[in-house]
This record gives sequence, structure tokens and C-alpha cells, in this order.
Amino acid sequence: MGTQTVRLADPPSVTGSANVVGKREGEGPLRANFDRIEQDSTFGEASWEKAESLMQKQALALALDKAKLPASALHYIFAGDLLNQCIGTSFALRELGVAFFGLYGACSTMAESLSLAAMSIDGGFADAAAALTSSHFCTAERQYRTPLEYGGQRTPTAQWTATAAGACILTAAGPGPYVTHVTTGKIVDKGIKDANNMGAAMAPAAYDTLCAHFADTGFRPDDYDLIVTGDLGVLGKSIVLDFFHQDGKDLTGNYDDCGVLLYDAKKQDVHCGGSGCGCSAAVLTGYILDGMCAGRWKRVLFAATGALLSPTSTQQGESIPGICHAVALDVAK
Amino acid sequence: MGTQTVRLADPPSVTGSANVVGKREGEGPLRANFDRIEQDSTFGEASWEKAESLMQKQALALALDKAKLPASALHYIFAGDLLNQCIGTSFALRELGVAFFGLYGACSTMAESLSLAAMSIDGGFADAAAALTSSHFCTAERQYRTPLEYGGQRTPTAQWTATAAGACILTAAGPGPYVTHVTTGKIVDKGIKDANNMGAAMAPAAYDTLCAHFADTGFRPDDYDLIVTGDLGVLGKSIVLDFFHQDGKDLTGNYDDCGVLLYDAKKQDVHCGGSGCGCSAAVLTGYILDGMCAGRWKRVLFAATGALLSPTSTQQGESIPGICHAVALDVAK
Repeated sequence: MGTQTVRLADPPSVTGSANVVGKREGEGPLRANFDRIEQDSTFGEASWEKAESLMQKQALALALDKAKLPASALHYIFAGDLLNQCIGTSFALRELGVAFFGLYGACSTMAESLSLAAMSIDGGFADAAAALTSSHFCTAERQYRTPLEYGGQRTPTAQWTATAAGACILTAAGPGPYVTHVTTGKIVDKGIKDANNMGAAMAPAAYDTLCAHFADTGFRPDDYDLIVTGDLGVLGKSIVLDFFHQDGKDLTGNYDDCGVLLYDAKKQDVHCGGSGCGCSAAVLTGYILDGMCAGRWKRVLFAATGALLSPTSTQQGESIPGICHAVALDVAK
Repeated sequence: MGTQTVRLADPPSVTGSANVVGKREGEGPLRANFDRIEQDSTFGEASWEKAESLMQKQALALALDKAKLPASALHYIFAGDLLNQCIGTSFALRELGVAFFGLYGACSTMAESLSLAAMSIDGGFADAAAALTSSHFCTAERQYRTPLEYGGQRTPTAQWTATAAGACILTAAGPGPYVTHVTTGKIVDKGIKDANNMGAAMAPAAYDTLCAHFADTGFRPDDYDLIVTGDLGVLGKSIVLDFFHQDGKDLTGNYDDCGVLLYDAKKQDVHCGGSGCGCSAAVLTGYILDGMCAGRWKRVLFAATGALLSPTSTQQGESIPGICHAVALDVAK
């Protein structure tokens, strides 16, 4: 096995998963795959930040219910979000009393948390662990771009930050789907400086990690029923397809992107598609895992992507470092 | 073993460690334990954020040199910092080409990264991994408090964010010191709301994790030659001593705090002491590991603490969640 990929000796089971999303996500094509759709962007809280924390709490509680486990059965929670100092997560988890590893992987956090949760179980350190993340359109917009009240015009390459949280409960024994391989990403920065074009900034990282996964494991793209990146959006997805096309590989039959899947981009006016930690989290914990359990796909490669920039780095003229972590899921061990 | 602590079956070795600090840190009582003291707060870079990234790069390069390993020998880097979206780390590592797990643990990051690096090796996923973090007084001050030019008055309970980076290279085989146990913290929030009194906010988390460590392992405080929290500062340290005193345990003989150790608080006008991810990182990779190698201490419990707040959560009237991760180090396996 190459340096970036590990094969889990006894693949942990994703025994429970759940998501909570906002109104717009609940109006999209994946609406049947969400556990809870909230119509009020504040979730009844006094701020959007508190709403985001509540959304994470709800997603985790629903996932635990499905896994038929109390929170006290979790050895670890691996979680993070997009907010400065990851307060969406720390305030969501502060009353829970579970050992917590805080992560920052931008929109790759669902795959990063899933990777470490699976490794903590396969390494013999835990019997059960949770992977959790979220994003909220309103908290992200005012932090990264402009106050919502400003009504800023969006560029054609912009993506829409999903209001969504997703949680997976992994256990040493369980009915699956199973996490069989983890490919951990390197930072890739090809010099893209447009913070409104995250798809182009992150696509090279997705390509890099997918190539590492195939090289390390010896698998070919068509060994997977579905390869799904996220959140590259329409433009980023086309760049990944182009990269593989140049290598003589046609991924059009079994490749998609969470940012493309989450919304009907034209009808819902989200330009290039969805983004945010919650986008790939909600697509994984809904559409993908539901589809695997329903027999639609047996083997899925979930490759979440993140843009490791900040408003400060953009203001200082820096380009955008990207990262992509991939997790292979299989209905059989 | 209790739920928060794991004993590593084959304790990984801290085979190389290094630090880089700023001028003020280099004028403090631990000056002999630093690998590089930089007099210029910009490190010759165009911004303090770029300076912080350079400091991380230098610390990692020095630690790799001491471990006699190239960066390509690392399976993983576990790292994070205090900056929004952890740009200190992502820009430090973007040219390195090593698989990267981004962390956010505030000032507990050195212990969090050390925990996961050790677990990745002991779990059989890596032969070598790095744990890395940093903080910079000037990047932190303008992000969390006021622009430096404003010259804001500091309260008596305030701590001084260290300009420092620390790196540890862990390997499966090596001369030690060894990471023998990892106790992962739960979030603890006792309702402290004063963002200028981090010591009081984090002390309950430190007490919680230390108690969990002793309960899980059966060790007593005096089984350790040194127990070191950080960065609680003068006030936080006295609170931890009080908590244990109430339990009938006297820790005055073998307990200290990285925030107290880093500066001469009175002479250097740092009020309650040092803070920032770089504080405990520099004290660990200098004073503590040097002392272990020199035979001063055989067994050390390193318990780094973090305050999981943000300026936004403070503005919204929230209290400060704290966390503490503990790592047991031993010169023998």
C-alpha cells in the first residue's frame, strides 16, 4: 500500500448516519434523503451560529438513534466546521461529555472525520466513534463574504454554502456499509486566487487524491460503482473529468460531485452548485448511504474536498490551497 | 482502561523535536531550550501570518533534521493553529507534499496532534508522523483583540500569546522518550465569560482530564516526575492546585504550567503568563523533552489546554468551553 492510503484490517461499519438541512436543501432533488428539513434559518435560536450548533446536535442525536447507541457509547467524536475557531462544533458538543478531537479540513471535514473515526476503531482505540460536521449559509456568508443584508451580487463560478449537518456513527461490528480504505490528501495549490471559484481551486486536489488512491490500491475507477467528490460544483467537476480524460480515463459513467447533486443548480439559482462542510456531509449521509443500503451501489469512493483559505489570506493576495480526503465504502467487508 | 484513555501497545518514540520562537520568548527563563530565536517579528515576511507559517516550516524542518528523516518519510502530519481557518498551518505545509490532517484544538493542539500522531503509528497506519503547531503574538492579537497599533490596556488576568512553533517527529522505533498513554479531553464549560481570563475558563477542563487520566490508568499524581498543564498561566495553575487540594491531593511538588514556565511574568510584563498553541509546543519541545533526555525527569504527563471560543461567541454573550488533552511520556517503553 502506498504512503497515502491505508487498508483497514477489519473495516468499521457505518452503523448509523443522519442529517439535518435547511429549507433550500429540502427543496432540492435529494429532499427524500434528508432526516429533517428545517424551514427557519435560525432554527429558533438567537443567532445563526447557535442555529448551526443546534443543527449539529440534532444530526448527531438522530444518527445515534439510528445506531441504537447512547452518546456515552462513543469513545470519540471527530468533528469540525467552517466557522472561525470551529465554534459550530465546540458549542454543539459542550454538554455531551464525550472525548473530542477538533478538526479543521474546510469542506473536506466529513471525509477527514470519517477517516480518523475509522482509523481509531481499526487501530483498536475505540469500539464506537462519531464523525460530524456542518455548514450554514448565513454564518458562512457573513464570515467569508459580505453581510447578507448587503445583497451582494454573486459571480457565475460561485457556489452556495449548504445549510446542512451530517453525522456518521462508526462501530467495530455492524451491518455496514464498511469503511475499507482511507486515502489522506496532501495540500495542492495550483495558484488559483479567485475566492469565488473554489471548484477550480480544489479540483487539482481531488484529482491528486483520486490518483493516489488508484495508484496505492491498484483499483481502477470502474472498480467503483460511484466516485463522488465534493464540493467541486459544476465547473470543478468538469475539470476533474478533463484531468482524467487527459490520462485516457473516462469517468463520465460513474463519477459525480456532491455540490452538483445537492441542488437543481438552474432552478434553485445556486450558480455552480453547493459547497460547505454540510454539503458533502448531507449528500453522504443521505443519498449515498441510503443508496448503498438500498442496493443501488456496492462500492463507493467518497472524496470530500476543502479549500484551505481564509478571508485574510485572500486579502493578502495568496492563492488557494486545496485538499481532498478519500474514503472507500463497501456494502461487504 | 476507561473510555478517555488508551495505553499504546507499542509506544511510539518522539525521535526528533524542535522549536522556533520570537524575541520575547528568547529573553525568558527557557532561552537555552530553544532551537532558533528570531529577533524580527515578521521573520522577514510581508505579513505576520506569513511569518507564522514560516515559523512552522522552520520548526518542522529542524525536527526532521534531528530525527534524521526527510519529509517524505512522514506518513502524516497532524497540525493546526489559532488563525481563522488555520491558515498558519495550511500555508506552511502547502509545498511539502505530505498527507495532512488539519486540527483545531486551540492551545491544546500540541497535545491533540501528538495524541493522533502516536495513535496513527501504534494503530499500524504509519511508521513516522509529525505533530506541529504555532502561534504568533501579532496575528493572534489583531484577530482576537485589537489592532496592535491601538495599544489596548491589558487586564491583570490576561495572558501573552507566545510567538512560537513546535514540532515533534514520532516514529514506530526510536530512542524515546515514548508516548505511553493518551487521554482525550471532553469539553468542559463552567460558565466563565471573561475572554481575558482564559486560565479560569480552562482550569476545570485540565482538572477533568487529569482526573480521568488517573481514574482510567490507576496512576497517582506522584507516579509522574512532572505534570505540566498549559497554558493556564498563574491564575489557572493556582485553580488546578486548589481543585486537587480539595480532593486531598497536594500537587505542589511535581506540577507546573507551560504558561507560567515560558516567561518571567513580572520582569517580562506578561501579566498571568504565556498562552497560544505555540506556548505549550515550545515548552514541550524544549524544556520538557530536553529535560527528559538529560535525565531530569523519567515520566511526564503533558496536558495541553485550549479555550474553544471565538470573538463571535464572546460578542454573542457565550461562556468559554475549555478542553484539555493529556499525553504521558516516558523515557522507557
